[in-house]
Amino acid sequence: MRALGEIAKFIGGEMHGDGSVSVARVVHPALAKDASDLALALSPKEASVLISAKVVNAVVSAGIENLSTPNQIVVSSPRLVLAKLTKLFERPVHLAPGIHPWTVIDPTARIGENVSIGPFCRIGPNSQVGDHCRLVSNVDIGAEVTIGDGTLVHAGVRIGDRCEIGSGVIIQPNAAIGGDGFSFVTREPGSVESVRKTGEVRNFNTEIIRIHSLGNVVIEDDVEIGAGTCIDRGTLGETRIGRGSKLDNLIQVGHNTVIGSNCLVVSQVGLGGISSICERVVIGGQSGLPDHVTVGNDAVIHARSGIVGPVEEKAAMIGIPAVPLRQFMDSEVKMRRLPNLIKDLQRQVVSLVEKVNSLLPPK
Amino acid sequence: MRALGEIAKFIGGEMHGDGSVSVARVVHPALAKDASDLALALSPKEASVLISAKVVNAVVSAGIENLSTPNQIVVSSPRLVLAKLTKLFERPVHLAPGIHPWTVIDPTARIGENVSIGPFCRIGPNSQVGDHCRLVSNVDIGAEVTIGDGTLVHAGVRIGDRCEIGSGVIIQPNAAIGGDGFSFVTREPGSVESVRKTGEVRNFNTEIIRIHSLGNVVIEDDVEIGAGTCIDRGTLGETRIGRGSKLDNLIQVGHNTVIGSNCLVVSQVGLGGISSICERVVIGGQSGLPDHVTVGNDAVIHARSGIVGPVEEKAAMIGIPAVPLRQFMDSEVKMRRLPNLIKDLQRQVVSLVEKVNSLLPPK
Amino acid sequence: MRALGEIAKFIGGEMHGDGSVSVARVVHPALAKDASDLALALSPKEASVLISAKVVNAVVSAGIENLSTPNQIVVSSPRLVLAKLTKLFERPVHLAPGIHPWTVIDPTARIGENVSIGPFCRIGPNSQVGDHCRLVSNVDIGAEVTIGDGTLVHAGVRIGDRCEIGSGVIIQPNAAIGGDGFSFVTREPGSVESVRKTGEVRNFNTEIIRIHSLGNVVIEDDVEIGAGTCIDRGTLGETRIGRGSKLDNLIQVGHNTVIGSNCLVVSQVGLGGISSICERVVIGGQSGLPDHVTVGNDAVIHARSGIVGPVEEKAAMIGIPAVPLRQFMDSEVKMRRLPNLIKDLQRQVVSLVEKVNSLLPPK
Repeated sequence: MRALGEIAKFIGGEMHGDGSVSVARVVHPALAKDASDLALALSPKEASVLISAKVVNAVVSAGIENLSTPNQIVVSSPRLVLAKLTKLFERPVHLAPGIHPWTVIDPTARIGENVSIGPFCRIGPNSQVGDHCRLVSNVDIGAEVTIGDGTLVHAGVRIGDRCEIGSGVIIQPNAAIGGDGFSFVTREPGSVESVRKTGEVRNFNTEIIRIHSLGNVVIEDDVEIGAGTCIDRGTLGETRIGRGSKLDNLIQVGHNTVIGSNCLVVSQVGLGGISSICERVVIGGQSGLPDHVTVGNDAVIHARSGIVGPVEEKAAMIGIPAVPLRQFMDSEVKMRRLPNLIKDLQRQVVSLVEKVNSLLPPK
Repeated sequence: MRALGEIAKFIGGEMHGDGSVSVARVVHPALAKDASDLALALSPKEASVLISAKVVNAVVSAGIENLSTPNQIVVSSPRLVLAKLTKLFERPVHLAPGIHPWTVIDPTARIGENVSIGPFCRIGPNSQVGDHCRLVSNVDIGAEVTIGDGTLVHAGVRIGDRCEIGSGVIIQPNAAIGGDGFSFVTREPGSVESVRKTGEVRNFNTEIIRIHSLGNVVIEDDVEIGAGTCIDRGTLGETRIGRGSKLDNLIQVGHNTVIGSNCLVVSQVGLGGISSICERVVIGGQSGLPDHVTVGNDAVIHARSGIVGPVEEKAAMIGIPAVPLRQFMDSEVKMRRLPNLIKDLQRQVVSLVEKVNSLLPPK
Repeated sequence: MRALGEIAKFIGGEMHGDGSVSVARVVHPALAKDASDLALALSPKEASVLISAKVVNAVVSAGIENLSTPNQIVVSSPRLVLAKLTKLFERPVHLAPGIHPWTVIDPTARIGENVSIGPFCRIGPNSQVGDHCRLVSNVDIGAEVTIGDGTLVHAGVRIGDRCEIGSGVIIQPNAAIGGDGFSFVTREPGSVESVRKTGEVRNFNTEIIRIHSLGNVVIEDDVEIGAGTCIDRGTLGETRIGRGSKLDNLIQVGHNTVIGSNCLVVSQVGLGGISSICERVVIGGQSGLPDHVTVGNDAVIHARSGIVGPVEEKAAMIGIPAVPLRQFMDSEVKMRRLPNLIKDLQRQVVSLVEKVNSLLPPK
């Protein structure tokens, strides 16, 4: 329970009504049940719900105050309000303190202070888990893994041998970090190589030889990895996710790819191997990037784009194959105008034919 | 073992031959081994296999009976035959009754009657598991979770704190329900916002602030969730999958999205957050939907579509960006005709130039 | 530690310098730290790093030898060098020999010689695990499953009842093998059927009836299955992955689909059900194939293709909908030329109009 006055202060809002009232939850206005709920209504649409619902306490944007709600926190800059409120009312995953007796920790592993490690986890030899870490349950941590302080590893996460996980990292359920890279070679040039060279399949993959993955995955501080996301280890070197970057669910990161800091990668994106994604890059959902590609700082790749070559710094890319947004719009507009341009031409030609025929001597 | 006569009755077929013969398996005609197998041959192609193979018992469609098969069940309406036969011969997941001793159930959790709970499961405090539920193994159920009666949870499934699962639900292996939503905000307007506004990257995501997920996931009765599918919890409210809807493998459902009843969502579809999919919607494989979108009742979205705006009731959508099927076909046809239309014009213009030149006075 | 001379022999290279020096690791030239590291520099770009770094031992391609590196193994055919070197220096997953006491093995299961089975695994009744198999941890193996010799099953893998896994198979973390197929039927023809027939939604999926999956999954020898990949069991028969085929991460394989031998399927590909992928087929990342499709031997499908019909032997396919590469290039070129062709026509017509007007009698 937190007092409205305290909340107003924390989120930088102005208290109207009784600031001593305490609330237990933040809810959408439609879900507010009683005086212990704080409704959040930053948009006019939400505010309209506020009017009809029996809401006692609300956070509202300046300009859309609803006078009938008894206690209001009015915010003039709503941008960070949701982040602040959800931080204040965060409901961390439930986990008993200490190490559950039904967990297997190698005697050579070092476990920090104040950890919570649930049942059915395995921690391999010479691995280290930092202070205040939480491992929910069914977590598998291989040999020689290091995990920094305050990292949260949800149920079913797999972290392979020799991977390095930073501090303050959050890994959602069933993510797989450190699987082997998808790296194979044929004894002679194979079908894909012949298509690249000649446009036709002239060679055949009669034997597929495995390239083993000796490298690891490095995840820097404050990264978040989504549920079911798979990050393969490097062949010789490392696959790396830079400080503060956030990866959504079901993303594929190929071996030896390096993602810089503060990137945002939306769900189901596929990143090929041996690629370099620089800093603050945003990649929309379901986009695909090939192997050996570079994406410059601050590039924004729209959802469902198919990148086929290097992306420049600050480029906004879209389409399959992806091109800069301006070029995409221009060529879309150009193509869409073609049918009408042709109709115009047809009309003009018909009229010309008539005129010319009228000028020709009669047969 | 079931008698052919009994089977004929259950599937609404007519018994030809010896209805007292008992069979143990339903198989494709090519796989029928002996008199204990019942071959299913509803298509002419399958029936042709029937002729060559030594099949003793068969279910065949009316009109394609094969006189050489001794015992035949002839069905005039084959539509539901496969569903009925596979129900009759269902082979449920093997699981010992009772609760395996190597499972961790919080003393405050309530477990129903006649459950089967395999090893290495965790059930958190104040959670409830209904009667006749089956949890295969390595299942993680957080705190304050409710699961209705007769629900089947396969190995490796994760169900986060406070989620609600209905009755008769089936959750395939390694699905993750209740991961945190992918929800972040920058202190100042970021790169994506500047692209939306200006078409260019003018702002930079220098700091990424987390919006915590306080909500939950609600899965209504008779829903099926595919292997590896990830359903994120709501930010404040809930993410909801409606009664009877079926989700395939490796699907992403973003936070606060609501799917209505009796929807079919094929594998690898990505649903953004805060969206509303109404009832009986069908979404083809690998399609993508953005955040904040509404899809009307009975809409059919073709595989690999890229939805970019609201979809009307009963619309059939296709393409990237997706448009109504009719419009897609029209514009496809229109575009494909352009090269020939232009060739025609070129011919006409050439002929006109000749004619006009012949009319011009000689230089 | 291995001697350079021994390595030179194994990879078929020529030893320059001191072959008696022993190295512990193979690394990218930029990561070489001391005399125990062997730098791999097969490309001119890597060789340039070699010059600047203090590298003592290196493998280099013939023609780009760097005289300043004291000990060099010069290879004239670099194609298989990486595969050979990573085999020599392979770092297999760390796993204690024997069966961990905290694993549940049904008394009727048969376990081979020299296995390593980590904690929290379950092996169901009548299942068999071959000699030299490794199950890392948290692995779930159902009833009546067979696993051949020398197969490696990483953490969190699920193998459903009655599935058959060959010898020398590698299954990466959190793969799900043997989930139920996504197979449903409506009592009357449903919305998708009406769209196929009429282009419009005229029927509605008021009831969705489950078709149960009685079949299994068969994975032949030497197959590799990526992290998070989901392979559904057959409805009556089997879903099969052929000998030596390699599947990357997060792939969907629908029920009853058969993949031939030595195929390569890149991450996030979606394969529908009841399909037949022949031998040595390559499918690029994020491509999608519908149900009931056949792909001929040695076909190469580019990344992000949307296959909509049968693919011929040795075809190189690309695009959405996918067409042969040549056709794609031709029609791309044709379409891109249209705007300029039209401009030309416009110019000609304008000039014609002028000429014709000059010929017309003055009004």
